[in-house]
Amino acid sequence: MVNDHVYITVLHYPAVNKEGRWVCTSFTTLDFHDIARPARTYELAAYYIVQPLEAQQFIIREQLKYWTEGFGSKFNPRRSMAGSMVRIASSLTEVMEEIKREKGKYPKLVGTSAKRYPQTVSYSQMRQIMDKREDIFLILLGTGWGMPKELVESCDYILEPILGAGDYNHLSVRNAAAIIMDRLFSPNRC
Amino acid sequence: MVNDHVYITVLHYPAVNKEGRWVCTSFTTLDFHDIARPARTYELAAYYIVQPLEAQQFIIREQLKYWTEGFGSKFNPRRSMAGSMVRIASSLTEVMEEIKREKGKYPKLVGTSAKRYPQTVSYSQMRQIMDKREDIFLILLGTGWGMPKELVESCDYILEPILGAGDYNHLSVRNAAAIIMDRLFSPNRC
Repeated sequence: MVNDHVYITVLHYPAVNKEGRWVCTSFTTLDFHDIARPARTYELAAYYIVQPLEAQQFIIREQLKYWTEGFGSKFNPRRSMAGSMVRIASSLTEVMEEIKREKGKYPKLVGTSAKRYPQTVSYSQMRQIMDKREDIFLILLGTGWGMPKELVESCDYILEPILGAGDYNHLSVRNAAAIIMDRLFSPNRC
Repeated sequence: MVNDHVYITVLHYPAVNKEGRWVCTSFTTLDFHDIARPARTYELAAYYIVQPLEAQQFIIREQLKYWTEGFGSKFNPRRSMAGSMVRIASSLTEVMEEIKREKGKYPKLVGTSAKRYPQTVSYSQMRQIMDKREDIFLILLGTGWGMPKELVESCDYILEPILGAGDYNHLSVRNAAAIIMDRLFSPNRC
């Protein structure tokens, strides 16, 4: 995997809801296809789904089994290859510890936000930093109404907002994942 | 809408299946969110879902109603704005006739394919062509195992393949839609 120093994760917890309260969001079945497949296409190390609820983890595991061992793996082996990228974790801490065991150091956290922070970087800056391969990186994607402010502020880097054509900017987490990986890793993005 | 000379469509028919036969594919509920929302973000004219089956059209309309008139429109008004971009059609011909009635001329067809054709263009070439605003454009997205070869070959332009990091390249139609619109219309893609 060319980009095996980079991991990506979707956080179902912590997330904030419309009122700004901390909540746990639900897994969406297409998160598997629409994030695992670009993660495989752009050759990242792994895609973590952070979901603390056991009942939700059960559903995710069942879906994974279908594509990696069940009928789906025979019907479409390329999906099985994408499925093998997916890991389930109960917390962001667990993800960071697992990456540390695997790579020998904690990953730098790369957040995403619609606002600008002191550690906000452009996509070309982030590409340069990642290309040095001096660190391990974990790209964090929020769900619901986004990640709590405290978590965004504790990131090492924050990617600048993806700009639309005007004021409206309301992409899904799957849209954002695909666009972010394309911008960071595709050889023919421009 | 800045890019109101550009339309996008997902074709559930014609599509080819694994064996290369022409089939009609099913609507996926997240196609609404994951294509309508970037279409609204990048300010395209409209997003057509081409689906000839009446039972499928019924499901799509029910979902649209939820987000544009029902509870969803109050819970999240930004989704209602995206929902208003979506149009349902029974065939590609119907889409082209409707665009002709709206804009006074037929759209140029912009295909997508993993292979190269005489009319294949790079993303920067396509941006230059679209920026002239001399034509109306319709971006075609296939489902299943892609669009029939005959349809791809009859396109005016074909976008070069989105390259991953290696040989594996198996993005979902929603991934492709988001990446294509970002590459063609975002002011900060590079």
